[in-house]
Amino acid sequence: MPVITKEIEIDTRGNNEILDLTPLVEKGLAAITITDGSVTVFIPGSTAGVTTIEFESGAVKDLKEAFERLIPREMEYEHNRRWGDGNGFSHVRAALCKASLTVPFVGQRLLLGTWQQIVLVDFDNRPRRRRVILQFLGE
Amino acid sequence: MPVITKEIEIDTRGNNEILDLTPLVEKGLAAITITDGSVTVFIPGSTAGVTTIEFESGAVKDLKEAFERLIPREMEYEHNRRWGDGNGFSHVRAALCKASLTVPFVGQRLLLGTWQQIVLVDFDNRPRRRRVILQFLGE
Amino acid sequence: MPVITKEIEIDTRGNNEILDLTPLVEKGLAAITITDGSVTVFIPGSTAGVTTIEFESGAVKDLKEAFERLIPREMEYEHNRRWGDGNGFSHVRAALCKASLTVPFVGQRLLLGTWQQIVLVDFDNRPRRRRVILQFLGE
Repeated sequence: MPVITKEIEIDTRGNNEILDLTPLVEKGLAAITITDGSVTVFIPGSTAGVTTIEFESGAVKDLKEAFERLIPREMEYEHNRRWGDGNGFSHVRAALCKASLTVPFVGQRLLLGTWQQIVLVDFDNRPRRRRVILQFLGE
Repeated sequence: MPVITKEIEIDTRGNNEILDLTPLVEKGLAAITITDGSVTVFIPGSTAGVTTIEFESGAVKDLKEAFERLIPREMEYEHNRRWGDGNGFSHVRAALCKASLTVPFVGQRLLLGTWQQIVLVDFDNRPRRRRVILQFLGE
Repeated sequence: MPVITKEIEIDTRGNNEILDLTPLVEKGLAAITITDGSVTVFIPGSTAGVTTIEFESGAVKDLKEAFERLIPREMEYEHNRRWGDGNGFSHVRAALCKASLTVPFVGQRLLLGTWQQIVLVDFDNRPRRRRVILQFLGE
């Protein structure tokens, strides 16, 4: 069966929290019969993104600080002026990082580098319960 | 039939114009027999990108201003010096934003968040007629 | 749905080197029987990314300088403090650029714009032998 879609839920704290999704993706892959193909990791919502990084605390901190520096929290955002929820920076960071990432796998193994993990970056300004979509396509 | 590719054309004004593509993607999805899979939205051309954002005028304005701030229009660009078309900033912004986005769907419904839209960002410095590729893969 | 995964190796010099992968992707596509679908170009490793750009020396130089400006090499990086390999900036740039790009094709032809190439950006601070995954899905 060539398309399998899973939805998982995770609790996040926001404020650039970076969470390693790799074990969840591997677990999903281990449970299905598609062995070769790709998985699209997709975040429904407009204040989080997905990318890869070496998931060690130094690089993770550096990435958080880069987002803070590039899209500062303390600026005038039109979104804040209109809606008052104070997370204008979250929306801009998420649009830059993007909500989708596609990773190939072969023989039921993700083709990641040895020190490369799939991560969710939660840009919101408050804790959330997040849905994460894992969609496996292949054969 | 597991692969359906559509090409649509839209007129854009450039200068960071952000256009909601979601209705076009939904219309494309409603017209085909693939119910579960993913759609890749791809922009042929090197001065536009595709991402998701909450398509409300505040967040849209904030994203435009972020691109202007990160990759300023008024700088020295080697592309401008060589080609004289003045859109060096457009090329850099587009390479950062990237021309491709993959979004899963199930039961012929895109798995977007409630306030999350698929958008084209046209970074060029002039109006264009843009081609947008929608490619649906699935079953 | 047929899936064909190829791995190619290329030598890179790092320091924002930008390499045109389009001929390699086209060569891969010409050698297989899938005619319609998409190719995911994926870089295993956490110090390189993949995007599209008009591959002319001006725009290429502008993109390199943008990464240098946005994520400066000479800053304090926690990754450097912990691991001493001096490539903290490479990790952050790669996480922003992202390691994956999906490009549709029809009739064995990539649906790129006329002046749009698929490029690898090597953000590391030293030469590398890079693996690049090309995964073709379609029919």
